[in-house]
Amino acid sequence: MTNNTKSKCAIAIDAMGGDFAPHNAVVGAIDAFNETKDFDLFLVGRKDEIEDVIKKNNLNFNSEFIVNADQVIDMHDHPTETMKTKPNSSMAVGTKLVKDGKAHAFVSAGNTGAMVVNSIFGMGRIKGVSRPTLTAPIPNSNSEFTYLADVGAFVDSKPQHIFEFAFLSSILLREIYGIENPRIGLLNVGEEDSKGYKLTTDTAKLLRESELNFVGNVEGNDIFGGKVDLIVCDGFVGNILLKFAESIIPFLKSTFKTYADESLVKKLKVGLIRGPLKEALKNANADKLGGLPLLGVNGISIIGHGSSSILAIKNMVLRAREMYNKNLIEKIKEELTHNAEKK
Amino acid sequence: MTNNTKSKCAIAIDAMGGDFAPHNAVVGAIDAFNETKDFDLFLVGRKDEIEDVIKKNNLNFNSEFIVNADQVIDMHDHPTETMKTKPNSSMAVGTKLVKDGKAHAFVSAGNTGAMVVNSIFGMGRIKGVSRPTLTAPIPNSNSEFTYLADVGAFVDSKPQHIFEFAFLSSILLREIYGIENPRIGLLNVGEEDSKGYKLTTDTAKLLRESELNFVGNVEGNDIFGGKVDLIVCDGFVGNILLKFAESIIPFLKSTFKTYADESLVKKLKVGLIRGPLKEALKNANADKLGGLPLLGVNGISIIGHGSSSILAIKNMVLRAREMYNKNLIEKIKEELTHNAEKK
Repeated sequence: MTNNTKSKCAIAIDAMGGDFAPHNAVVGAIDAFNETKDFDLFLVGRKDEIEDVIKKNNLNFNSEFIVNADQVIDMHDHPTETMKTKPNSSMAVGTKLVKDGKAHAFVSAGNTGAMVVNSIFGMGRIKGVSRPTLTAPIPNSNSEFTYLADVGAFVDSKPQHIFEFAFLSSILLREIYGIENPRIGLLNVGEEDSKGYKLTTDTAKLLRESELNFVGNVEGNDIFGGKVDLIVCDGFVGNILLKFAESIIPFLKSTFKTYADESLVKKLKVGLIRGPLKEALKNANADKLGGLPLLGVNGISIIGHGSSSILAIKNMVLRAREMYNKNLIEKIKEELTHNAEKK
Repeated sequence: MTNNTKSKCAIAIDAMGGDFAPHNAVVGAIDAFNETKDFDLFLVGRKDEIEDVIKKNNLNFNSEFIVNADQVIDMHDHPTETMKTKPNSSMAVGTKLVKDGKAHAFVSAGNTGAMVVNSIFGMGRIKGVSRPTLTAPIPNSNSEFTYLADVGAFVDSKPQHIFEFAFLSSILLREIYGIENPRIGLLNVGEEDSKGYKLTTDTAKLLRESELNFVGNVEGNDIFGGKVDLIVCDGFVGNILLKFAESIIPFLKSTFKTYADESLVKKLKVGLIRGPLKEALKNANADKLGGLPLLGVNGISIIGHGSSSILAIKNMVLRAREMYNKNLIEKIKEELTHNAEKK
């Protein structure tokens, strides 16, 4: 598909996904739509609940673009079981819209595991990909981001899988985040080649033999250190690190609260801190980041935090639009074909 | 050995270990000695360099307690190779003092991996231990600590190893840190039993069948959350998490510096932050924590950060003294025997 024959962008949103669904999902997605009006937006979920949110918030939305899905996947659903038990969930219906070519992207702030499974089974994997990956930005000391992949699409990865995380995420960083030739580090317990175990040694070999810009092993302190643009690891480690990273600001808040409760003077001091602290850490504001793309599936799939705000949803939808406009999926397919031909 | 026939405590310090050795190691250890004077202190390393530090700092120290060791292990030495290439290193000589019963503890701020290897080969493992563990305290939102084991003594652990980390660290928390019946969590990517992979499922089974106070899976955000007292994991994950955690304060400092450099007003605001920030995060001050014990070797082995200050070294020595006075090694042996008899 070339740009001049490109069809109009169509994005589907999981209206039932997230702790504040359907409200935040519906309002945020319509906000995004109203900002550019150059794409089709499908709201997927329980039609009556969606219409209720539209009405209560005095929004304008063409009800032909509401796609009914009776079942709702919640945070306690077992990801793979939802394929059997909830075949008519908003996630199943939304990813099918992409499979059928009616939408180019599906966006959800619902159960992450279920979204991974539904995206893979609903959209299918791109040829040449054995394991898709979730890639997350983490702010670093250079006031930029260090991207981490995989942050939990899969655990117990083989070297080939981690190599694919690097391959797919490199394309994302170049095409979407404007990092020309992303420097890639392999997460390990030391910089030396001899560190780690068979998984890291074999993965390093694959990365070194590839055309990727692999700079070697990196350690836990290099995430904030900003030594590389992309750090790859198994999703077990990546998921634990991401959740730990997300808990830093709540930890600081709680620590400051304890401190403030000790005296009035301390309370005043903490009051002075709040503004600069918030502003200095603005890069860490998940609302602005536009969700985590699941790379390697045959369509744009973006997963947001369960607690996604209206702004977070809006930015996820706009990110999906950007990925479509910049031909991310086609770029991934081209590079995979190119890579396969070389072998 | 019972308390009334107990020999006088003897602690050996690696005078050559750490970025500021021999200065910080020698001064810090003598500070600890002068505070209690109820133990014997051995300074292990290059005698002339040690004497030089003693002289320049106008310290009093009985030179009979300086144990010469010609070789020095540096941060770039490959841990296991030091056993062959540096048989007369301060670490080899220090751990041999423990093996020979001349000292009860050896303390070092040198190369962590080399200290693990030298402690295991020098002191030997306690019967029943297949893998020793390094246990680290991480401040949590309850103004207490969450302990993490293993933070990097070993990678690629089997379920039995992670079970042992829990077993050994539980004794440490009870005997040394005063936590009566430590709640133990297994680090995983979700709370549900079905999460993770074979390693976590099999480890959870071992923990559940034991007498340990195992509460189930915990996630990355539970480290700061303080849901449990002890979190166990493979040393690969633990080491990456510890280094990431240690990089939070430097990251905040760098972020505040960038913010301060934007304008004079912002600089003033950051000036106001510094005091409360430091005070609020005082729990995170590694100097006070007394180093990381390597549990499971047949003697007290404490490993400090390479950048250990004089105070950090002093507290490591005092911690070693406390572990001797509280019979930590004997307690571990008793419980291992008790556990073996039950099977």
